[in-house]
Amino acid sequence: MKREYPKQPIVAVGGVVIQGSRVLLVRRGREPHKGEWSIPGGMLELGESLVEGVRREIREETGVHVEPLEILGVFDRIQKKGPRVQYHYVIVDYACRRTGGRLNSGSDVLDARWVKREELPDYCVAQKAALVIARAFKFAEKSPKVPSAPKDAEQAL
Amino acid sequence: MKREYPKQPIVAVGGVVIQGSRVLLVRRGREPHKGEWSIPGGMLELGESLVEGVRREIREETGVHVEPLEILGVFDRIQKKGPRVQYHYVIVDYACRRTGGRLNSGSDVLDARWVKREELPDYCVAQKAALVIARAFKFAEKSPKVPSAPKDAEQAL
Repeated sequence: MKREYPKQPIVAVGGVVIQGSRVLLVRRGREPHKGEWSIPGGMLELGESLVEGVRREIREETGVHVEPLEILGVFDRIQKKGPRVQYHYVIVDYACRRTGGRLNSGSDVLDARWVKREELPDYCVAQKAALVIARAFKFAEKSPKVPSAPKDAEQAL
Repeated sequence: MKREYPKQPIVAVGGVVIQGSRVLLVRRGREPHKGEWSIPGGMLELGESLVEGVRREIREETGVHVEPLEILGVFDRIQKKGPRVQYHYVIVDYACRRTGGRLNSGSDVLDARWVKREELPDYCVAQKAALVIARAFKFAEKSPKVPSAPKDAEQAL
């Protein structure tokens, strides 16, 4: 599937995984915004539901197993080059609970880390991602299940 | 763009327009679910934002001009035929406020009507659409702006 100069908008999913005072971030290995720190996620595949896509992408990129809990936001990312549409994503971001797995930067990313909330400014995440991360911390504070996810479980989904 | 047996998930948008005790419905002119009553909407175009897509689709299908206010839900609609994916939509539904236009069933639909809430059961809308309509009525009750939209204005967006 063509990511650059696509024929139609592409559906992407992202997952914000909060554990205590940390959030799971990846350093993007692909354009657009290659090299920048962001929320893990990627393109939804044909026949795959949104939550299946979130589980798969986070597992592939970070080794962490998650359960998507709630939608935090839906965003357009449209980038033009002259009159042509170079990138067009519709991104659905979920708050996720870690269910298992072990951190291990995987496909399509340069690095993956659990980042402390107070260190987030050093990672220069994009404005929309920062907004979604803030929503996820708020959601986690309200949902006792999120911070109490098993810390070192190796449970498969 | 191929709607049936697509190569990737297709983004669709829908808009629930509430006016007083009525909701704007269309009778679908296309598969899937041709002939059934549903929320107006359709495929997002390349380079078009979600809210632009909602405005355009509702105008084309019903003649009514709207302003999207808030996302009511995001849904997968995946339909398989044997092992192949016949339809795969990711649908983003918005609560909308009518800003103008006049009811006039348009392209891709067989009919368009303002349907009273108590008459909804006669229209047999799908379960997910009924859920979203119920959310929109709840949203409209909380938002004084929605029921007070101009009734007969011909204002263009």
